[in-house]
Amino acid sequence: MKISALKNQIFLKKSFLCIGLDVDLDKVPSSVKAMEDPLFEFSKAIIDSTAAYAVAYKPNIAFFETYGSQGMASLKRVMDYLNKNYPEIFTIADAKRGDIGNTATRYAKAYYETYNFDSITVAPYMGKDSVEPFLSFKEKYAILLALTSNVGSSDFQTQKIGTQMLYEKVIQSSAQWKGSDRLMYVVGATKASAIKGIRNLIPNAFLLIPGVGAQGGSLAEVAKNGLNKDVGLLVNSSRGIIYASTDKDFAIKAGTASEVLQKQMQQILEKKQLI
Amino acid sequence: MKISALKNQIFLKKSFLCIGLDVDLDKVPSSVKAMEDPLFEFSKAIIDSTAAYAVAYKPNIAFFETYGSQGMASLKRVMDYLNKNYPEIFTIADAKRGDIGNTATRYAKAYYETYNFDSITVAPYMGKDSVEPFLSFKEKYAILLALTSNVGSSDFQTQKIGTQMLYEKVIQSSAQWKGSDRLMYVVGATKASAIKGIRNLIPNAFLLIPGVGAQGGSLAEVAKNGLNKDVGLLVNSSRGIIYASTDKDFAIKAGTASEVLQKQMQQILEKKQLI
Repeated sequence: MKISALKNQIFLKKSFLCIGLDVDLDKVPSSVKAMEDPLFEFSKAIIDSTAAYAVAYKPNIAFFETYGSQGMASLKRVMDYLNKNYPEIFTIADAKRGDIGNTATRYAKAYYETYNFDSITVAPYMGKDSVEPFLSFKEKYAILLALTSNVGSSDFQTQKIGTQMLYEKVIQSSAQWKGSDRLMYVVGATKASAIKGIRNLIPNAFLLIPGVGAQGGSLAEVAKNGLNKDVGLLVNSSRGIIYASTDKDFAIKAGTASEVLQKQMQQILEKKQLI
Repeated sequence: MKISALKNQIFLKKSFLCIGLDVDLDKVPSSVKAMEDPLFEFSKAIIDSTAAYAVAYKPNIAFFETYGSQGMASLKRVMDYLNKNYPEIFTIADAKRGDIGNTATRYAKAYYETYNFDSITVAPYMGKDSVEPFLSFKEKYAILLALTSNVGSSDFQTQKIGTQMLYEKVIQSSAQWKGSDRLMYVVGATKASAIKGIRNLIPNAFLLIPGVGAQGGSLAEVAKNGLNKDVGLLVNSSRGIIYASTDKDFAIKAGTASEVLQKQMQQILEKKQLI
């Protein structure tokens, strides 16, 4: 997908909502669990009821991978469904892959081509030659882990290297790599105060922000510090939407929960005079 | 697998050889490529011809994942074959996964349970709560990226945090985490001089050493700096063995190439009076 198409969607839907498909079969209604392909059926129902409010979907690959080849077949069905019925929506493989050269290219081909995602999350630890292979596919995007929302982010990410924290060095270095115009970054919503500094380092890059809702991040704070002239944010919600109800009405309630977030986003965009 | 069983294998076979199954269908003989499941058939032939010399196999997950659910079904067949016919051999999922909490547990279950590996390689960037979930399974091991063999390892891994390099901090911090007795580390053979310092930090942990052969690392240097009283090393070779020939005799040549490495390892162990 062209980045301009993602931006168009954001302005059209007045939303920068990404919905995380962390489909946990222990949490889906028994009526869905009894179906032949519950991972697909649950995802499909969520997608159909929320697509009017979302600009991106982010399947969490671990939740498919744990079911072996069958789980990956379900992932393929989800992606085929999304690409056929909602080709305008941006797709993110939340895979956090990271390896070098030829291996990285295989991961890129798996997610960009075999499963036909627009983007994939990537880990930076191995450096430039582990990320650039993900940046060499036309209209495909790597979303690099920068500052994550979990407690363990203080173990290494916020450690000081000279005058910078590691995550700042990751951002600044990677912005120089080949294909960095196709680079986005993961920044946790629980680190809203850091987003301002990150925006100074990369004014134009899209930020994927998990951690709003269940993890306690504030949408208003994130928007205050992270919005740029193109909006430049994808704020993710997973559990708050897909498990808004764990009963038969899960899809309806997911739609309602995502509409609530979309309306909050619309207000923010109007207040900032971005729409 | 119990760690004592891995140690027994090492002394029994006089070998600390790990064989990387980076099965590239562009490099396998056309006779294999024409078969119904070439990923499996090639792996099986390599395993059967090299198992006498190797103590571990390390399938590179990207090379299976790139073929979608079919690729993962091939991986399952490889693992079922290995576990049935060579249950004494240690298995490593070279997956370099890294995510938090529930997601990490799903990845762990995928590789420890669904595919029945003994271990998985894991990336440290997200910190403690992204690694500990991989350390909470009985007789299953996480192999943490520390200092990798690629050029990009200098981007972040060797950057100084206070008086330590990042990879040293990763090693020292992780050695305090819950379940760290089930933690091993990836250290590139091209960084042989650093292995001595790493041994001081973690005298007892196993080190998985890629980069001997094709990437230019020296087995003698690695052994000099890395051996401990239990041997404590798994030295990996992938391309040098599995593509020793790209013709019909690939399996025979792989056997010969692995025997050559095993003999070198035996000599090193004898010289060090470890056997």
